[in-house]
Amino acid sequence: MHLGHLIPFLFTKWLQEVFDVPLIIQITDDEKYYWKDLNLKEVKEMAVKNIKDIIAIGFHPDKTFIFRNLEYMGQSVGFQETLARIQKLVTVSKIRGQFGFSDSDCMGKYSFPFNQAVPSFSSAFPQIFKGKTDVPCLIPCGIDQDPYFRMTRDVAPRLKFLKPALVHSKFFPALQGANSKMSASDPNSAIFLTDTHEEIKEKINNYAYSGDRDTVKEHQEKGGDCSVDIAFQYLTYFEENDEELEKIRQNYSSGEMFSGQIKEILIEKLTRVVLDHQTKKKSITEDIVRGFMTPRQLVFDF
Amino acid sequence: MHLGHLIPFLFTKWLQEVFDVPLIIQITDDEKYYWKDLNLKEVKEMAVKNIKDIIAIGFHPDKTFIFRNLEYMGQSVGFQETLARIQKLVTVSKIRGQFGFSDSDCMGKYSFPFNQAVPSFSSAFPQIFKGKTDVPCLIPCGIDQDPYFRMTRDVAPRLKFLKPALVHSKFFPALQGANSKMSASDPNSAIFLTDTHEEIKEKINNYAYSGDRDTVKEHQEKGGDCSVDIAFQYLTYFEENDEELEKIRQNYSSGEMFSGQIKEILIEKLTRVVLDHQTKKKSITEDIVRGFMTPRQLVFDF
Repeated sequence: MHLGHLIPFLFTKWLQEVFDVPLIIQITDDEKYYWKDLNLKEVKEMAVKNIKDIIAIGFHPDKTFIFRNLEYMGQSVGFQETLARIQKLVTVSKIRGQFGFSDSDCMGKYSFPFNQAVPSFSSAFPQIFKGKTDVPCLIPCGIDQDPYFRMTRDVAPRLKFLKPALVHSKFFPALQGANSKMSASDPNSAIFLTDTHEEIKEKINNYAYSGDRDTVKEHQEKGGDCSVDIAFQYLTYFEENDEELEKIRQNYSSGEMFSGQIKEILIEKLTRVVLDHQTKKKSITEDIVRGFMTPRQLVFDF
Repeated sequence: MHLGHLIPFLFTKWLQEVFDVPLIIQITDDEKYYWKDLNLKEVKEMAVKNIKDIIAIGFHPDKTFIFRNLEYMGQSVGFQETLARIQKLVTVSKIRGQFGFSDSDCMGKYSFPFNQAVPSFSSAFPQIFKGKTDVPCLIPCGIDQDPYFRMTRDVAPRLKFLKPALVHSKFFPALQGANSKMSASDPNSAIFLTDTHEEIKEKINNYAYSGDRDTVKEHQEKGGDCSVDIAFQYLTYFEENDEELEKIRQNYSSGEMFSGQIKEILIEKLTRVVLDHQTKKKSITEDIVRGFMTPRQLVFDF
């Protein structure tokens, strides 16, 4: 996982703390399985690694259920029944159109949007919601996930279920700038949660797109451009102190400060975030993972 | 259930006794659900009724696992993983061609052939086969089920699984004659396992297609036609004594015997079969059903 993956989970953690609600995290290992050249064992191992990263973020064990599709689908009649109800209502032509599938795509790809839709409905988790089908659902997700939930929202009223509500998170930009996207396959596009202090330092210093002007003179006259300076952009996510952030913004915009100085602050901050995460992750045992992934009642009454 | 449903199960019972093997019976309630205007509760109730009929036939509780798709699919990661492996290998165009589905069919219909295929493979039942994937499978079924297992046999080698072997049973003819089919929606087409002695008598006497000739004189000259006389046809299934059956065949073919006399013998036999079944079925409690349907180890070592 990289920082771009971390952001929506940090937001989700905030949501859980503020609203004190059950949190259900779906790991779409079936998507990985059907789209990539990976076997079941490989996607399972990847899923468990990601789940360790997610748990390390600090979700409450009594309030959080984490599952991967290829496992929980075989553990929940409630999930299967909800899936069947959706599959009875949605035609293949609808799915084909919405997701751009062709006839030569495997059946697994067609099945995936349904599996992704099911957890929007509380009927998929009878162990948590006691069979209630009217528990509202809020889904924080990237905008790229929207088509799945558009299908889900379409079908909800026909099932007499509530439509899930969505909060789309902005893409966390790649180091190369606001219009690039972090990629797990390009190590220099992102800070990974496994990076060392040295790697963070090197990547930020060498690859973070700078908002500095071309010459020192021009920079001092016109000031730096906060809207493109990646170090500054990242700080807006990781500098929790709004006054501190505003001071940096002013100093950089006025040309007093250079991107290199923001990078220094950022490197320190990110190193703390990443190393802290690594320490927490080390303490996440297989047993803890199994605990989060066990279908069970959470500490809420429904 | 009617007599036509009973026959393959009687044969299956014979197979289980002769070969002393685990028997797994799949109830395709998902097929009912996707094709008929029924809700989940209704298909579940129908399935449980059918399962009581099946248990009453006398399957061994320690050697038989009965499941309905919409339940067991949510109880078995082994089933789900096998399903995913097949869904990754088979394209939508293949399914469309093999089963004549169209784009306006719901996704559920497309999913059904996969659910039907999965139990051919021992990996779908880790509680019975301990994760072994090379246990051969024999499927007694009606010829109408062949396309499903053709797909299954196609995909098996690509999964490094054994192809299932099939035994196709002949259709048990409807009362109206050899080219008609019993139908649950036409009560006069079939003897049902819930029929009374009077109903059996009335149906056989009034509706069983006769092989008699047009006049008594012609019948005595040419003899009756065993190949179309439904009462005789039915006796070939229910008269266990081959000598007795051969005697009837000769007497009828020679014109000595009339269809009415065969019907008398048949009514007595069927009444015994059906009332005996009803008595047995009455003793099948919900607990016994639950026992057969609980995913568990059977009395075989793998």
